[in-house]
Amino acid sequence: MIAEPFWRYRLEVEYDGGPFAGWQRQENAPSVQATIEDAALVLAPGEAHCYGAGRTDAGVHALGMTAHLDMQREIDPFKLQGALNGIMRPAPVSVLSAELTDKDFHARFSCTERRYLYRIVCRRAPLALDEGRAWRVTQELDAEAMAEAAKLLEGTHDFTTFRSAHCQSKSPVKSITEIRAQRRGEAIDLHLRAPSFLHNQVRSIAGSLERVGIGRWSVGDFRGALKAKDRTRCGPVAPAHGLYFVEAVYS
Amino acid sequence: MIAEPFWRYRLEVEYDGGPFAGWQRQENAPSVQATIEDAALVLAPGEAHCYGAGRTDAGVHALGMTAHLDMQREIDPFKLQGALNGIMRPAPVSVLSAELTDKDFHARFSCTERRYLYRIVCRRAPLALDEGRAWRVTQELDAEAMAEAAKLLEGTHDFTTFRSAHCQSKSPVKSITEIRAQRRGEAIDLHLRAPSFLHNQVRSIAGSLERVGIGRWSVGDFRGALKAKDRTRCGPVAPAHGLYFVEAVYS
Repeated sequence: MIAEPFWRYRLEVEYDGGPFAGWQRQENAPSVQATIEDAALVLAPGEAHCYGAGRTDAGVHALGMTAHLDMQREIDPFKLQGALNGIMRPAPVSVLSAELTDKDFHARFSCTERRYLYRIVCRRAPLALDEGRAWRVTQELDAEAMAEAAKLLEGTHDFTTFRSAHCQSKSPVKSITEIRAQRRGEAIDLHLRAPSFLHNQVRSIAGSLERVGIGRWSVGDFRGALKAKDRTRCGPVAPAHGLYFVEAVYS
Repeated sequence: MIAEPFWRYRLEVEYDGGPFAGWQRQENAPSVQATIEDAALVLAPGEAHCYGAGRTDAGVHALGMTAHLDMQREIDPFKLQGALNGIMRPAPVSVLSAELTDKDFHARFSCTERRYLYRIVCRRAPLALDEGRAWRVTQELDAEAMAEAAKLLEGTHDFTTFRSAHCQSKSPVKSITEIRAQRRGEAIDLHLRAPSFLHNQVRSIAGSLERVGIGRWSVGDFRGALKAKDRTRCGPVAPAHGLYFVEAVYS
């Protein structure tokens, strides 16, 4: 806990996960959290703590990560946004907005819904412009079969099959509010909404839906994998660089 | 001219213009043309010539540049696509498709319409994910005023105001078939279609439309700049990294 007096700011943050070992501060690798905290310390020496709604893995991007930043200085939030962005350059982390907030607001614990996007691009040719921004799958994908399988995950289930063996959550039971597979030209976007997710859950789901899309698994196989509650029945975990934290909802 | 026997392939090419000095081969700088020709020479030593529908400037991207490639070897076009992409890696140039074509097809001279996109993103925060992929304008833009000004350019005009002083075209008179300004969230996309464009024409137009968008110029000022046929009346030329060659049409 940071020593009083301190001020809490709510930030919306966009980042390219490519150069980072993930959201969370690490001993010997760059992280988004450390990038923001180190910039804050330039403005207010002492202590600075930044917590995000989600702790994204290495390589995962964010279009709109909500975070709260505790600093031992009161600053006009509009100036704070500009100053943080200036100090963080050229790191690909951008504070989209900043506002002063109550200390009972917690980016992680107050969050009631997280939204993720997993981007698949279905084509043979390498991605010249979207390299590192989407998962390229070279086989044709059946988006309708993927959508049908995805719908099986909505509601409350034991997601043991679709979580990392290293997941620290006490229970594998989670509720997915909505999951949609949407085709846009050669892209298939998977949109997911849930109160919270397990470690590697979205990438495990995306990798297993790809099995359905290429026809290696039937929708029944996918259902069987879910029902088995067995991590070894998961498809290959989809790569981090196709995943985007889209939005945190507070209600 | 390449010596017989040779085969002509039509290619659709996507590239990130960032690391290139432009489409055209240069003495001491990387170019898209040289990247493709050098890869072709690995497959067919001797001569290789590649011509694009447009000769994009340094930093300009392509979503779908049509080119023809002359090589002294007959190869299955599907294999040619894969082989060129393999050889060119990690350069951000991707052959989307390849087919064998008649020698009376010329990517540049047979082309009847070129389509460009200029991407503006209107926000204060730096672009963490779209850095180098769009022009960030930090002031609010009036998309409707921009669209109104843009419409003035449709049809046949003397575009002296909107072409580079280095433009080598004999005449400044060109016809723009369509120009649209479309708002998508915080982005404004300018879509342009014309049989052909002058050097720096799209970037000159985009930079001048930005003047209208931020309210520095009225639509009447924009009309006056066009009518003046005076290069010094052009707005600042918009940066290359917001520009995309979208498509070449052959009819």
